[in-house]
Amino acid sequence: MQTACESVAAYAARAQAVLPPEIWHYLDSASGAGHTRRDNEAAFDAIPLMPRPLADVRGGHTQLALFGRPLAHPFLLAPIAYQRLFHEQAEVGSAMAAEAQQATMVVSSLASQPLADITATGVDAWFQLYWQAGRDATLALLRKAEAAGAQAIVFTVDAPVKHATLALPAGVRAVNLGPDPAVPAIGPGQSAVFDQWMMLAPRRDDLAWLRDQTRLPLLVKGLLHVDDAAHAVAVGCDGLVVSNHGGRVLDGTPTSIATLQRFRKVLPASVPLLLDSGIRSGMDAFKALALGANAVLVGRPAIWGLAAAGPLGVAHVLRLLRDELEMTMALASCARIADIPSNYEPFANEE
Amino acid sequence: MQTACESVAAYAARAQAVLPPEIWHYLDSASGAGHTRRDNEAAFDAIPLMPRPLADVRGGHTQLALFGRPLAHPFLLAPIAYQRLFHEQAEVGSAMAAEAQQATMVVSSLASQPLADITATGVDAWFQLYWQAGRDATLALLRKAEAAGAQAIVFTVDAPVKHATLALPAGVRAVNLGPDPAVPAIGPGQSAVFDQWMMLAPRRDDLAWLRDQTRLPLLVKGLLHVDDAAHAVAVGCDGLVVSNHGGRVLDGTPTSIATLQRFRKVLPASVPLLLDSGIRSGMDAFKALALGANAVLVGRPAIWGLAAAGPLGVAHVLRLLRDELEMTMALASCARIADIPSNYEPFANEE
Amino acid sequence: MQTACESVAAYAARAQAVLPPEIWHYLDSASGAGHTRRDNEAAFDAIPLMPRPLADVRGGHTQLALFGRPLAHPFLLAPIAYQRLFHEQAEVGSAMAAEAQQATMVVSSLASQPLADITATGVDAWFQLYWQAGRDATLALLRKAEAAGAQAIVFTVDAPVKHATLALPAGVRAVNLGPDPAVPAIGPGQSAVFDQWMMLAPRRDDLAWLRDQTRLPLLVKGLLHVDDAAHAVAVGCDGLVVSNHGGRVLDGTPTSIATLQRFRKVLPASVPLLLDSGIRSGMDAFKALALGANAVLVGRPAIWGLAAAGPLGVAHVLRLLRDELEMTMALASCARIADIPSNYEPFANEE
Amino acid sequence: MQTACESVAAYAARAQAVLPPEIWHYLDSASGAGHTRRDNEAAFDAIPLMPRPLADVRGGHTQLALFGRPLAHPFLLAPIAYQRLFHEQAEVGSAMAAEAQQATMVVSSLASQPLADITATGVDAWFQLYWQAGRDATLALLRKAEAAGAQAIVFTVDAPVKHATLALPAGVRAVNLGPDPAVPAIGPGQSAVFDQWMMLAPRRDDLAWLRDQTRLPLLVKGLLHVDDAAHAVAVGCDGLVVSNHGGRVLDGTPTSIATLQRFRKVLPASVPLLLDSGIRSGMDAFKALALGANAVLVGRPAIWGLAAAGPLGVAHVLRLLRDELEMTMALASCARIADIPSNYEPFANEE
Repeated sequence: MQTACESVAAYAARAQAVLPPEIWHYLDSASGAGHTRRDNEAAFDAIPLMPRPLADVRGGHTQLALFGRPLAHPFLLAPIAYQRLFHEQAEVGSAMAAEAQQATMVVSSLASQPLADITATGVDAWFQLYWQAGRDATLALLRKAEAAGAQAIVFTVDAPVKHATLALPAGVRAVNLGPDPAVPAIGPGQSAVFDQWMMLAPRRDDLAWLRDQTRLPLLVKGLLHVDDAAHAVAVGCDGLVVSNHGGRVLDGTPTSIATLQRFRKVLPASVPLLLDSGIRSGMDAFKALALGANAVLVGRPAIWGLAAAGPLGVAHVLRLLRDELEMTMALASCARIADIPSNYEPFANEE
Repeated sequence: MQTACESVAAYAARAQAVLPPEIWHYLDSASGAGHTRRDNEAAFDAIPLMPRPLADVRGGHTQLALFGRPLAHPFLLAPIAYQRLFHEQAEVGSAMAAEAQQATMVVSSLASQPLADITATGVDAWFQLYWQAGRDATLALLRKAEAAGAQAIVFTVDAPVKHATLALPAGVRAVNLGPDPAVPAIGPGQSAVFDQWMMLAPRRDDLAWLRDQTRLPLLVKGLLHVDDAAHAVAVGCDGLVVSNHGGRVLDGTPTSIATLQRFRKVLPASVPLLLDSGIRSGMDAFKALALGANAVLVGRPAIWGLAAAGPLGVAHVLRLLRDELEMTMALASCARIADIPSNYEPFANEE
Repeated sequence: MQTACESVAAYAARAQAVLPPEIWHYLDSASGAGHTRRDNEAAFDAIPLMPRPLADVRGGHTQLALFGRPLAHPFLLAPIAYQRLFHEQAEVGSAMAAEAQQATMVVSSLASQPLADITATGVDAWFQLYWQAGRDATLALLRKAEAAGAQAIVFTVDAPVKHATLALPAGVRAVNLGPDPAVPAIGPGQSAVFDQWMMLAPRRDDLAWLRDQTRLPLLVKGLLHVDDAAHAVAVGCDGLVVSNHGGRVLDGTPTSIATLQRFRKVLPASVPLLLDSGIRSGMDAFKALALGANAVLVGRPAIWGLAAAGPLGVAHVLRLLRDELEMTMALASCARIADIPSNYEPFANEE
Repeated sequence: MQTACESVAAYAARAQAVLPPEIWHYLDSASGAGHTRRDNEAAFDAIPLMPRPLADVRGGHTQLALFGRPLAHPFLLAPIAYQRLFHEQAEVGSAMAAEAQQATMVVSSLASQPLADITATGVDAWFQLYWQAGRDATLALLRKAEAAGAQAIVFTVDAPVKHATLALPAGVRAVNLGPDPAVPAIGPGQSAVFDQWMMLAPRRDDLAWLRDQTRLPLLVKGLLHVDDAAHAVAVGCDGLVVSNHGGRVLDGTPTSIATLQRFRKVLPASVPLLLDSGIRSGMDAFKALALGANAVLVGRPAIWGLAAAGPLGVAHVLRLLRDELEMTMALASCARIADIPSNYEPFANEE
């Protein structure tokens, strides 16, 4: 058996080596020229870290509570579709790893394995919900997630129209969804965007309706304008996942970390903000927490681990990220998550 | 037959693959070190896009009116010289594609096919006019364009002196022009620039004269200083095409999008401004519209389509751009062109 | 025998050529993505140099005094661990070179040769002290350094937890240290960072304790926050080595030269500040002195010399750096170190 | 015979192809990491050009007067040492080209051919003077230049100490200089910089002395601090050549164009400022003139022409630069040099 990789970057390299090129490209690519994807990461790099040696951080830990439940650490597995593309153990493998590392897994609407099989691993699972073209089908999917034991719902709103960027191989499909929705026919002069796909997209009143359908915590993922975020909170949503979809939907959007800072400035401190898009290290996670995030979602790095080494790879990536976060906390004299300032200013007290 | 390309960038790659290297170089190159060309595109990339999901954009569309005529969308084919260099169907092929996609085509003074053949496709055609060394020859060319059915005149003023950067192959020439003008002889100590070529260049009084020669809408293309733009409007021109000639004339000029913003700040809102130079996607077009453009001209991308796949390629490039614009509008909650703000501030309402 | 290299960069190239790849990688690498390492050097490059020709600098020199002792010039050899990795003459070779070039050598706690052998060369030696998991072992090491003739102690505090990034070859080890400390065992749910390694790390009260254990000048190396620097001075430390460990500990920290400027603004002028991390030329040294440093430490460049040409290589690198500093001083009209302004503003007197 | 190159960049490429690698490297290289050389050029690129079409520039020209003498255009050949390295016709070849293109040639103290041979071409020649270790030898060289017909003296002060970066081939030497000066011997502990080379360097009183030795216009080349420039003017120097020696002396100095702007702000408008270092095109020359230069010196581009095609190459490079300047003037609506504003603000009149 292969030895474990030594870093998250090494898992990326091994994943690229073992995946068929078109699958790697699908995983690695972003929309447009990829500016948003690169900007997400560069924005983290531009934030300085300020070590504070000689502090007493003995007995520190990374525990926190979210929606009333204790978490061992602030890393969640981001919802990634069709994980059978990357490894035969797929979502179940990711779930086993998350369970072993005490991580919550956000299961995609487009999971390639049955929800029940995933939650049977014992993992703490949230469910990522895509609108299903109408209220009935959406409600049916929500109920299926609740029945499988999902502990929270993450409603993704930034990708109303899917572009197929990969022809799915035989046997890989979204097994938890009902039949494809009927797409309205359009005539000459009509628009596939405005008269077809957007007819099936959720709207503001659908969000308010959805809020009323479940007692689970409801988070909205993919809002980037503060007015939209404030509206989601106003209609009763419990939290937000700050995300630009890893740069996969619209190239040129604001970065995830800049959006987090804008949201945190405006929203009540009691509203949990989870950051998705761009986390590549425990140092990045520290920066996100220090700029207002309550927790972070890990997307591509976890899949690098899955592709490279199956469940063990995912677990090791999570362990590497946890270790880096702990080390960064220790170097920054933060023994607990609450010690990390929520409005990070590395040069405060100067001038 | 080859399958269609999936993106504008893929058409560029295929065009490069099929064109003779010297023709590709001629198409792709820019003046000087190419700063202006790269800056044009980088300036678009630096403008953020702010999605506003959950809006109701059902039944939206991209229609607009320009000079009293309805347009299905804001994309025009930019005037590109000598299209027989790129494909045997040349300007007639581009016109067929424009007609199929309901796009207006701006036909170059240096078209390599007869005006009448181009307009016979039924395309909505404008005519791009170069000064013909004097008023008589210029007027003759204007009348020829009017006779062929041109609906507007685009007077290009930024390239008074032509540099031959390509030896035209046999059979490729500007078939709609009269004989070459007599160039003044110069003696020792005289300047080829000041005493020869600039003797044949148009001047301010020529613009005023030209305005009086036609009832068609007259646009000026290539002005970059706001005083020059204001002067053109003052002498009765109907609109401006904001352009630095795709970086092909003078390296180091301001970018097209920055110039658009400067012009829009100064000129009356009733003056149509069309942006040329740097549009590579429907997202770019959205940004141009959001910063004050009424419509946009597409140059190299259309020729990539022509070289790669003839009229079908041009049509497909236009379709891709339209789809991207519609998608961007939908994601930005703009159901109509008029919903796009004309002074885009993605972070307005914050602070 | 090989001819000498002509520049510090040439020594780097030769070192890369002669070292085994994994040793070169260990020397050359930095933590994370290497941002801090590159930023250290780029920050120097961004500081302009202002020549002042026609000055009278005859008879100038680079002498200075530090902790009451005269130095011929402001270059010290930085503490680099395990120099047998790079050349068989190792630390003794470096010491011979330093002695020949009148440079002080800061000997690492992780030296691969006995302290007594190193000081037997007659070099002016300081000793770099790592915390030894507790006070007893630390004190024992301190006493060993004092006994070997160390003239100052440099207490490094920025690397409480070591990551093994290289498996040491047989025969290369820290010969001056006692047996490895007993690492606390941890159980399930406990943290290797917080419950194991940080149990062995020094804390603020250990610094105060250490201060009381020696009459030698005590410098602290690796503090980056001005409050921490001020605290070290307050408890009686004699100086600071401004360092981010050459980017080898935590990626994303502030650059060495920026930290120097921040420290100099806040600390009394009487506190010596030595700059480590990023010095690649005598011009860099001039900039550091001009921005508040009293002296500078040279790390990788000295090892490039050691690997490329043994003691002669180290001596030549020091000579090249001295020559460059003298030349820069001469061009800047500074005949003496004291003529270099301590708050460099190349464009002062303008405006 | 080879066809002429089409651009200055093409001459650079051909020069690199025909020169022995070590000669090309000597010509192309700069000091340190080459930041200053690249910054010189990048600073020009960052200055926008604002076309003003439709102006009447018929009969324009580039003539100007400098020190009471008429010049056909503002390009001078910069002083380049040892031109026999690049072409057998060497300085005489450059002079023939300059004469043919009505350009003034600044002959180097380190010319590899006799002054009399160079001026016998009929070229307008200035003489670049290096300090010759003392007043007697300097005066002898000055007199030799005057006797050969030099029309102005350019005293270069930024390179008091020469580094040999090339071993001169047999037969290439500074034929116009006397025997090498006696270098003071130094003992142990003395500095080659402060006690040897700087003993031979010129000082402020030498500049005042030099001013009194000649009735020719005296320019100082290589000052970068405004106080030094003001001092040179105060002691009676007639002009300044703003130069950082093409980045060949000290890496990290301010750029030539930024220094020009700083000098122009402080010095009387009557003091001619010539810009050296970084001119690669006629557009660059326009920018220099528009920011306060009276004329510009062309260094490497002329030598590219010399190496590539001998005197015809130098003449063609000058012609290309002149054509580009004329074209830029015409596009910017400047019929004469005096029409170019001396404090260029491309966006003036806006806001």
